[in-house]
Amino acid sequence: MNNYQTSLRDIDFVLYELLDYESHCAQIAQSTLDRELVNAFLAEAARFAEKEIAPLNSIGDLQGCQLMAGQVTTPKGFKEAYLNYCAAGWPGLMRQVQYGGQGLPQSLGLVISEVIGTPNWAWGMYSSLSQGAMYTLEMHGTSEQKSQYLPHLISGDWTGTMCLTEAHAGSDLGLLRTKAVPQRDGSYKISGNKIFISAGDHDFARNIIHIVLARLPDAPEGTKGISLFVVPKMLSDAQGQVTEPNGVSCISLEHKMGIHGNATCSMHFDEAQGWLLGDLHKGLPHMFTFMNLARLGSALQGLAHAEVGYQKARDYARERLQMRSLSGVKNPKGEADPIMVHPDVRRMLLTQKALLEGQRMLIYYASQKLDISAQIDNDEASQVASQILGVLTPIAKAFSTEAGFESANLALQCFGGHGYIRDWGLEQNLRDCRIATLYEGTTGIQALDLLGRKLLGDGGQALTLLTDEIELFCQQSEDLLHLNAHITQLAKLNQEWQELTAEIAQKARQNPDEVGAAAVDFLMYSGYVLLAYLWARGRKIAYAKLEHGHIDSKFYKAKLATADFYFARILPRTQALSEAIRSGADNLMSLPDEYF
Amino acid sequence: MNNYQTSLRDIDFVLYELLDYESHCAQIAQSTLDRELVNAFLAEAARFAEKEIAPLNSIGDLQGCQLMAGQVTTPKGFKEAYLNYCAAGWPGLMRQVQYGGQGLPQSLGLVISEVIGTPNWAWGMYSSLSQGAMYTLEMHGTSEQKSQYLPHLISGDWTGTMCLTEAHAGSDLGLLRTKAVPQRDGSYKISGNKIFISAGDHDFARNIIHIVLARLPDAPEGTKGISLFVVPKMLSDAQGQVTEPNGVSCISLEHKMGIHGNATCSMHFDEAQGWLLGDLHKGLPHMFTFMNLARLGSALQGLAHAEVGYQKARDYARERLQMRSLSGVKNPKGEADPIMVHPDVRRMLLTQKALLEGQRMLIYYASQKLDISAQIDNDEASQVASQILGVLTPIAKAFSTEAGFESANLALQCFGGHGYIRDWGLEQNLRDCRIATLYEGTTGIQALDLLGRKLLGDGGQALTLLTDEIELFCQQSEDLLHLNAHITQLAKLNQEWQELTAEIAQKARQNPDEVGAAAVDFLMYSGYVLLAYLWARGRKIAYAKLEHGHIDSKFYKAKLATADFYFARILPRTQALSEAIRSGADNLMSLPDEYF
Repeated sequence: MNNYQTSLRDIDFVLYELLDYESHCAQIAQSTLDRELVNAFLAEAARFAEKEIAPLNSIGDLQGCQLMAGQVTTPKGFKEAYLNYCAAGWPGLMRQVQYGGQGLPQSLGLVISEVIGTPNWAWGMYSSLSQGAMYTLEMHGTSEQKSQYLPHLISGDWTGTMCLTEAHAGSDLGLLRTKAVPQRDGSYKISGNKIFISAGDHDFARNIIHIVLARLPDAPEGTKGISLFVVPKMLSDAQGQVTEPNGVSCISLEHKMGIHGNATCSMHFDEAQGWLLGDLHKGLPHMFTFMNLARLGSALQGLAHAEVGYQKARDYARERLQMRSLSGVKNPKGEADPIMVHPDVRRMLLTQKALLEGQRMLIYYASQKLDISAQIDNDEASQVASQILGVLTPIAKAFSTEAGFESANLALQCFGGHGYIRDWGLEQNLRDCRIATLYEGTTGIQALDLLGRKLLGDGGQALTLLTDEIELFCQQSEDLLHLNAHITQLAKLNQEWQELTAEIAQKARQNPDEVGAAAVDFLMYSGYVLLAYLWARGRKIAYAKLEHGHIDSKFYKAKLATADFYFARILPRTQALSEAIRSGADNLMSLPDEYF
Repeated sequence: MNNYQTSLRDIDFVLYELLDYESHCAQIAQSTLDRELVNAFLAEAARFAEKEIAPLNSIGDLQGCQLMAGQVTTPKGFKEAYLNYCAAGWPGLMRQVQYGGQGLPQSLGLVISEVIGTPNWAWGMYSSLSQGAMYTLEMHGTSEQKSQYLPHLISGDWTGTMCLTEAHAGSDLGLLRTKAVPQRDGSYKISGNKIFISAGDHDFARNIIHIVLARLPDAPEGTKGISLFVVPKMLSDAQGQVTEPNGVSCISLEHKMGIHGNATCSMHFDEAQGWLLGDLHKGLPHMFTFMNLARLGSALQGLAHAEVGYQKARDYARERLQMRSLSGVKNPKGEADPIMVHPDVRRMLLTQKALLEGQRMLIYYASQKLDISAQIDNDEASQVASQILGVLTPIAKAFSTEAGFESANLALQCFGGHGYIRDWGLEQNLRDCRIATLYEGTTGIQALDLLGRKLLGDGGQALTLLTDEIELFCQQSEDLLHLNAHITQLAKLNQEWQELTAEIAQKARQNPDEVGAAAVDFLMYSGYVLLAYLWARGRKIAYAKLEHGHIDSKFYKAKLATADFYFARILPRTQALSEAIRSGADNLMSLPDEYF
């Protein structure tokens, strides 16, 4: 029952037709990365994902990970697939050239992690965590640290993790207690317990490099006293040979709703030797290097489960025969019509399709800003991109994971009772998906970041960069009759988006709780507006291709229909959200705690 | 981690303050059933649920059911709890007096099944299925059949099931193939395979009475050739003693996403002896006796998981310390404030509270119509109630299960990452809940029943019964200043509800797919309007109690605040729905199948 196919056609559409990836690559000095080369990478990643990774998805769920005698064993086949992944050179694709990487842009790295991770997210997380650890080392490590760790991580011989959460410190990292005691040799003794550490231990690699948040004994309280450390599972000598175990152990595995194939570890650090990464007491901002990338990664997870669910649901809807179409028999030779004829099944499928293709546009769009923001040779463009990315990241993360869950849920619904049983994989897909709105900052945390920090924090400047871009697009599309209704709708919402922001800012001056009261609804509203913008752009392109008699007319006609569906049936949700936002904080705050 | 408590206070509010259950009981000739007696039943049911059933919920999930040598074993403790349930006389409460029952109304039976099932729905389903089987026997059995089966079912010594679904015939029962071949002695040989049979086999009881849909060899095709049969697992003699096995066996158990404690069986009927129940070829309408009751039962399941999730999330929100309130420190002695101070946590909790208390009002309201519709001594009132019930049943089933899933999901979200791990029970609650929008007719099937059959089928007459009632309430509340804004909103939606129905009817004349295209959004719209009506009624009562200085002021103040929240932040969803409904069928039907 595994007919999963990578959506290479849609990926190509978003990269090249919507976002002009060739110009983008030239802009970020990657002009050698032409379309042919990118497509070769993607085709190979797709082959690997479909043939080697997808078949392990169900095994991973059924077997899960085991902890025995302090060592985690991953499900059958996971390790072999990882070794093949490394042998093919995937871990180093985006990494710095001087340490053995190929120096390709993050935007491409994200697409490749989507392609490889989609059919089996639990497996994909092992390498994603490594990517994050390498990226953090690249950004904040000394050249000595880079030389020591990066070659092993790039070869895949070692992997990496991020260790943030403690049992009492989840969203509130300021409360964390893990200690780092300075030693005479310049290293630190790290002691404490971390929970929810994805890929915290496993049987893939000789060594695991933990990036750990901890606090010096005399550090300031709260988030301003947190530093970042690199703490390997195994110590190594100057030649990079593993010598002896460090004081790091996995003491238990969490029993989770899903992603069973990924080891979620409780880690114990017992005077483990660690080294400061970056500046003292700057652990939190440093960690956000990692975190922001991880948030776009989680956004891709929302897309991944939507994609897997949609493909299964669509195929099932074509094959499953139940009842006749109300508008006349469509399959006279069969005992019933395929359920695809029923309008409500189409509503569910189109909701998935409109959301997931929209999610892809949004995340790729954000990933280009990530590339530009990382450029140091163009300060102004980089700063602007960075501001926009700051707005897009929490939206992409929270909106895409919420939308992904909605889609995965609708995909299951398309199967009726069969969706609830293990055989078809829909229930695993929904369980695996469910984590995405929780980790790397919950939807509520993303929403506060967006509204409180990114929008109200700078007086609305960052938002204006986006709304100006949308306004310009609307102006440039004014004379397109076929897009008229959509542009009118989009321009109105773009205007309302700014008004809502201003209204909340106004109210927040009287009552800071107004921000939290509006935050999640506002984030979702923002996501729908951005998808409307991107769908309008996508529709404009598809229409032009059809007008010029493009050969791939099915694809473009589907884009037109899906865009129209989005504007007609999804976008009206903004009305419910704007009304909820405008209702203010009182209806949330007036009830005393004990009356709940 | 199991502090579950039955919501007796809210149940009492809905039964007696909102719905005047005393007058209702008098009206259906149950005047002996006074408030004190009802409360005694409910208190005892609550005690049993909290002490004996709730502790088995997590065990049920972890152990699941096992099939060995053709016999199903239920999780540890399930059977003992069932025997205690029978010893206390619960199975016969609503059943006919002449067969050993106590003849209490169905409305009370539903409340009791809510109370007993809420903390462990998988366990509760065993007895619910029996109730449905007994009800069907009461309605359609001969007096011989009743005498033969009911006493054993009422004592709980035997249990019952319903066997509808076949692998290729889920929503489309017309396709079913199970054969019933007439025998000389008046019985039938039943042969075929049924899937998804809840409580199809288990170790609770000496015998299991299957109510089976099958088809005679010469029967008309489709739904008009289906008959209903009673097929016991064990044959019995004239004295009701079990003699020998019938040709009925459980051949496998489904591996499901949740409700692991309930055995979902694939049943094989191999020339099993069965007897016709009711009239030949009237199996489907007869089965709807069972089905309509089961749909209200499933509606309660949506409420149940919402209730369990809400209680856990509320308690956690009071205890979990993370971050400070934006409007100033609330818990200066702690290292952080309880997360209940954060507006978004309150938004999630109030959403659950507003929906679940609304679901309860809606289901109880429907259950009173069920009582009246079952009365035969008042033809007109009974017919009116029956019409209203026809409209309310699909709404209650689909809306409450969808809302229940939303609530269970938000409850998990309140726990952050901790919601995703097994320990807190939130992930089980979400998995268990997920089945409810699928079985007993999916949300899509309910929506077609509502719009296609119940509303457009009778030219809108049944809807008018409801909208008139709402209009009358609005008129009667006109002079209540405190309710003014709500009444305005409600009256407007009540009007729009009728307009939407008329518009769809109009469009459906041109294109029958317009019904399916609007159906689910229309059903959800209807649910929100009905909840608005019931919340307005509830708020009016609570306000009056507070005005008269009622002692239980916390409860009534919470009602006021929750009603206000509902109108401000949930009800606006109707705008998104009405716009989607009005967008028509074209945006769903225009895309050719192969373009998806």
